[in-house]
Amino acid sequence: MRLPQRLCRPAPLALLTGALLAPVLSQAAEGMWTLDNPPTALMRQELGFAPDAAWLSKAMRGSARLAGGCSGSFVSAQGLVLTNHHCVAECVEQLSSADKDHMKNGFLARSRAEEQTCPAMEVNRLEAITDVTEQVKAATRGRDGVAFTQAFNAIKATLTAQCVGADAKTQRCDVVDLYHGGQYKLYRYHRFQDVRLAFAPEQAIAFFGGDPDNFNFPRYDLDMGLLRVYENGQPAVVKDFFPVNTRGPAAGEAVFVTGHPGSTQRTLTVAQLEQLRASRLPESLMELAEYRGRLAQYRTQGEEQARTANAELFYVENDFKVLKGQLEALNEPALLAAKRADEARLRAFAARQPQLKAVNGAWDAIATALQNYRSFRTLHGQLERGAAFNTQLFGIARTLVRGAAERSRPNAERLPEFAEAGLPAVQAQLLSPAPIYPAFEKFKLSFSLEKMREHLGADAPLVHQVLGKDSPEQVAARLVDGSQLADVAVRKALWEGGMEAVRKSQDPFIQLALALDEPARALRLRYEREVESVAQKNAELIAQARFAMTGPRVYPDATFTLRLSYGKVEGWKEGDTQVPPFTTLGGTFQRATGADPFALPASWLAARERLDLAKPFNLVSTNDIIGGNSGSPMLNARGELVGLVFDGNIHSIGGAYWFEPARNRTVAVNAAAIAETMDKVYGARALLDELQGR
Amino acid sequence: MRLPQRLCRPAPLALLTGALLAPVLSQAAEGMWTLDNPPTALMRQELGFAPDAAWLSKAMRGSARLAGGCSGSFVSAQGLVLTNHHCVAECVEQLSSADKDHMKNGFLARSRAEEQTCPAMEVNRLEAITDVTEQVKAATRGRDGVAFTQAFNAIKATLTAQCVGADAKTQRCDVVDLYHGGQYKLYRYHRFQDVRLAFAPEQAIAFFGGDPDNFNFPRYDLDMGLLRVYENGQPAVVKDFFPVNTRGPAAGEAVFVTGHPGSTQRTLTVAQLEQLRASRLPESLMELAEYRGRLAQYRTQGEEQARTANAELFYVENDFKVLKGQLEALNEPALLAAKRADEARLRAFAARQPQLKAVNGAWDAIATALQNYRSFRTLHGQLERGAAFNTQLFGIARTLVRGAAERSRPNAERLPEFAEAGLPAVQAQLLSPAPIYPAFEKFKLSFSLEKMREHLGADAPLVHQVLGKDSPEQVAARLVDGSQLADVAVRKALWEGGMEAVRKSQDPFIQLALALDEPARALRLRYEREVESVAQKNAELIAQARFAMTGPRVYPDATFTLRLSYGKVEGWKEGDTQVPPFTTLGGTFQRATGADPFALPASWLAARERLDLAKPFNLVSTNDIIGGNSGSPMLNARGELVGLVFDGNIHSIGGAYWFEPARNRTVAVNAAAIAETMDKVYGARALLDELQGR
Repeated sequence: MRLPQRLCRPAPLALLTGALLAPVLSQAAEGMWTLDNPPTALMRQELGFAPDAAWLSKAMRGSARLAGGCSGSFVSAQGLVLTNHHCVAECVEQLSSADKDHMKNGFLARSRAEEQTCPAMEVNRLEAITDVTEQVKAATRGRDGVAFTQAFNAIKATLTAQCVGADAKTQRCDVVDLYHGGQYKLYRYHRFQDVRLAFAPEQAIAFFGGDPDNFNFPRYDLDMGLLRVYENGQPAVVKDFFPVNTRGPAAGEAVFVTGHPGSTQRTLTVAQLEQLRASRLPESLMELAEYRGRLAQYRTQGEEQARTANAELFYVENDFKVLKGQLEALNEPALLAAKRADEARLRAFAARQPQLKAVNGAWDAIATALQNYRSFRTLHGQLERGAAFNTQLFGIARTLVRGAAERSRPNAERLPEFAEAGLPAVQAQLLSPAPIYPAFEKFKLSFSLEKMREHLGADAPLVHQVLGKDSPEQVAARLVDGSQLADVAVRKALWEGGMEAVRKSQDPFIQLALALDEPARALRLRYEREVESVAQKNAELIAQARFAMTGPRVYPDATFTLRLSYGKVEGWKEGDTQVPPFTTLGGTFQRATGADPFALPASWLAARERLDLAKPFNLVSTNDIIGGNSGSPMLNARGELVGLVFDGNIHSIGGAYWFEPARNRTVAVNAAAIAETMDKVYGARALLDELQGR
Repeated sequence: MRLPQRLCRPAPLALLTGALLAPVLSQAAEGMWTLDNPPTALMRQELGFAPDAAWLSKAMRGSARLAGGCSGSFVSAQGLVLTNHHCVAECVEQLSSADKDHMKNGFLARSRAEEQTCPAMEVNRLEAITDVTEQVKAATRGRDGVAFTQAFNAIKATLTAQCVGADAKTQRCDVVDLYHGGQYKLYRYHRFQDVRLAFAPEQAIAFFGGDPDNFNFPRYDLDMGLLRVYENGQPAVVKDFFPVNTRGPAAGEAVFVTGHPGSTQRTLTVAQLEQLRASRLPESLMELAEYRGRLAQYRTQGEEQARTANAELFYVENDFKVLKGQLEALNEPALLAAKRADEARLRAFAARQPQLKAVNGAWDAIATALQNYRSFRTLHGQLERGAAFNTQLFGIARTLVRGAAERSRPNAERLPEFAEAGLPAVQAQLLSPAPIYPAFEKFKLSFSLEKMREHLGADAPLVHQVLGKDSPEQVAARLVDGSQLADVAVRKALWEGGMEAVRKSQDPFIQLALALDEPARALRLRYEREVESVAQKNAELIAQARFAMTGPRVYPDATFTLRLSYGKVEGWKEGDTQVPPFTTLGGTFQRATGADPFALPASWLAARERLDLAKPFNLVSTNDIIGGNSGSPMLNARGELVGLVFDGNIHSIGGAYWFEPARNRTVAVNAAAIAETMDKVYGARALLDELQGR
């Protein structure tokens, strides 16, 4: 699935991105384009149509970003937001309890009064894009290492604070790094923080086929959820939204996806790709695989274990499939050969241009930084990135400890995650009333502590400090049982009490986070100095060379910011087999077995006779998307919503590194199936009328 | 740990070994030498001593091979065999029950009468080596594909049957493929099938430090077990055995290891190594990691789960560490660079010699076979190699089904595992009374069925055939609950009843194995035709070129046959730290925490005051060993046993592909610690006297 961005588990090297390796000649449908630089000529050439400025402006304001890491779109004038079920699943779980399982039974608000507030959900709408490249580059010019990072953070904090102004409650601003330092843009969003759940089908049909079918096609999933944003207690009034075309698209029809692809690594240097292939990906995969095994077995231990670990297992299986596909892509000899050839071409170009003299050492500087990072990568991951402490409670403790320290400093000197403009979002997350399950937190924490010992060795100082003479299980139990951080009021008091309250706290997680803060910060500083700043600075240089060689009609790597992708509804050839672009509602019943994950919910079995089984259900198109695009609208040339993106096929996973036009496909729910099933399975007439503007 | 060979999970490509890449200049201590080709000159040069023919003959007959996959040695005239605890652990578990846990509490026979029969243990002693290279090569000359494989199997079946003669009960013969077809030798063994357990300490001290310390050093493990072989109901009379020197070795002293290293891949072609790095190892590691997670969590579900899954988890964690270390070694840029350079040198040499003309295409032929194998490797692994059916019951069913079919054919036309000479061992394993736990079998099988669906896809014909409309859990439960194969008498009746009895059986595993036999055999045939025979034939050619270039003073890749390794007691430099070669008994108490896996057993805590804590416990030496060497004797120049090999350090894992003299170390229990603890912790005076020849 095209999962929420935060679930991509960004690891150290996500930051270590490199040169701007966009293709010299774009292939059909390739590209995740910013809305201020659309590939108009290409679209006209390949589709016979290109959107105009009004179309693009409406597409921008009709698109939504879910702060958790998904995409979505406004689909009515009264604030309805359409996205995927797996993007609202966390809310659905949080609104559930042992008695009332909305994941299992679905959720439908039959009136506005029945719509329920999602405890930790925020929806953003992009309002404006401003170029701030010159300001950012001027601030860091001539600086290295820590000075570079500090200046970089300071200018970003200043720009975003200015942009948000006094209206932090409804405004959000980010400095976006495009082309790895080739451009910096200020994105301003409108924030919707009162988000309520209106409709979610049963998970059994939203994720029919489960992990076995995930990232595959043919597919039969109603992976949809409807939210409604409120302002001042009333449904928000929305001017720009996408009317739903309940006929869906035709085979071969041109379709456009607007959404927030999370991250791609198409412009990494060869050294970075090789490091991913040799260590990063295999290590992450082994860890995920073992965690997956633990979780799957934990879920068999009882109904409550099954319920509380459900979402985590889903994310882990999804991530696993993604990273596995990425590793397979990197092991395709053709991929690295193409990357090597491209890098060699760019290096030769840079070497010939006197004005690009500074660029020559950039690739080797990044490779050296990576090599150096090997010596402290494990400890950095365990301690500063917190891999050793896989529990929400430690995350909360660290936010409280660091938040107290950072908020007492001037805005421009803080760690960037505590810059003034972002504090409302930090606080909203910290004080979310979403439930925390102690048994599950112990399970997760004891496993991560065990892995810490495995990765660092039983004799490492951190292992002695954290475990002492106890086992991981004993330490996890002591910490979780002794902590009160699951109580929102306790967190609120500590957040508001600042460093004094934090220092006085007897909470074992607060004490642990305090005790580890100094060595953890030292590792962070070392990482910024020796790795991150080197990568950022040199990637900027490589981007400069790339622009000089190819000009500005290229698209930047994905950054969880709004992008436009164009394409067509089209199947592909899998070996000798032509895969058709559509599945039907009828196919679902043929595929169903009665056993999870191929068991249909009772509502579907009951509605079978009423349904038009010939109606299309899911579809594939040639659009270029990636994780983070989950929930994106699929639009036709008239700007109507004809589909709801929820996945890619198995070949789309390699899209992290390159675009394969022949096989990479986007997977979407057909708008025709949304209408048919909301009507005949769920009796959700009022919502369906609203979607159709009636 | 240096685990039993069968636990190395040999996978398809273990067979795809390639050129004879022994170094032109051997490094200190490198080499696993056959006892008929010892590196006398090198030993004299490096150690100032080389064993003579009498020493070697005694070393051969004093060494033991455990049919399960370990090494050992005879240590008394009355048939005592010393090996590792982890080599007898399966027996210790089989002799245990819910009431009587010898893994936890240890086992000591205070008299011969208390020695207990291991249900599934066999000890072999090598008696003679004969060169049969000409016979084997003559039989296969001019043949390709299936004809090659059939002729190869036929000559091996004929030679071993002749060798065993009428005495299959006490004789075992194997045709050993050395230098990947460079030489074929006939190894004749004496079989001891009545093997009894005399002593095993508690697992807590045998495997003190558990998985965290496994493959590490400093180390504090009493990883020992004592067996006794019987003949005609009496302790076997043994002429050649190693007297135990209870002082142990000095630092710097020359030491020799005789044992049965399982397999190395030092002579694989570059294409084979790259395939291991890109697919085989990462795929195996992901699968093992997930299985590890499942097992570890399963063990938390109850005491019985913990006990029944204990050994399996141990093997899985051990394999995982080995394969992970192998992947890391292959990702060392220096390793592949050295292999590429060596291969280029050999290819250039072959290209210059007119008589080696046939060799030129060998490397590419192997690479092409590998490439071709990709298209059916997954199905071959799941169906023919049985990865989909991870339960002893399916293994038993397949042995019954295939055994019935194969035994009705002439010896030379059978699948090699059913050749006449090997049938007594097959039957002994099939009819072993070792317990089978239904709950655990269901657990394992349902996981492997789930993985089958994941690897082949939900729509694959095999998946439909095996799962139908049910879930993996449902199918596993139905098969295990419906089967009677856990009953030895049922197995015996089916084995003796032949194909008629098998076809009539209503047992669901027999029916499954019957239904799958034809497609599984077809895959095996395809593999033999397109992959295995190509690799074997071309590896022979490459071996021929290698001999022509370097002469015969090289050692062959390990083949779980008896080898000699020479070395010295010596620590190594880990980063900036010099690791000393010995640990002490006292260090054990410092390292103990009280929490598993660092909790000492009660017997040790009680004996602390009585022990000489300054005595050496474990040690490292520069010997070149690999998995399968577990339980090997470490001898001094006088042929006395001064240590018991049980592991290698973390750098030894890369020994699969090359030998790093600076860091690769063998880990052993010091004979001094064996004597001290048998006496003062366990009061095992009678056995200790016997070990000391008193």
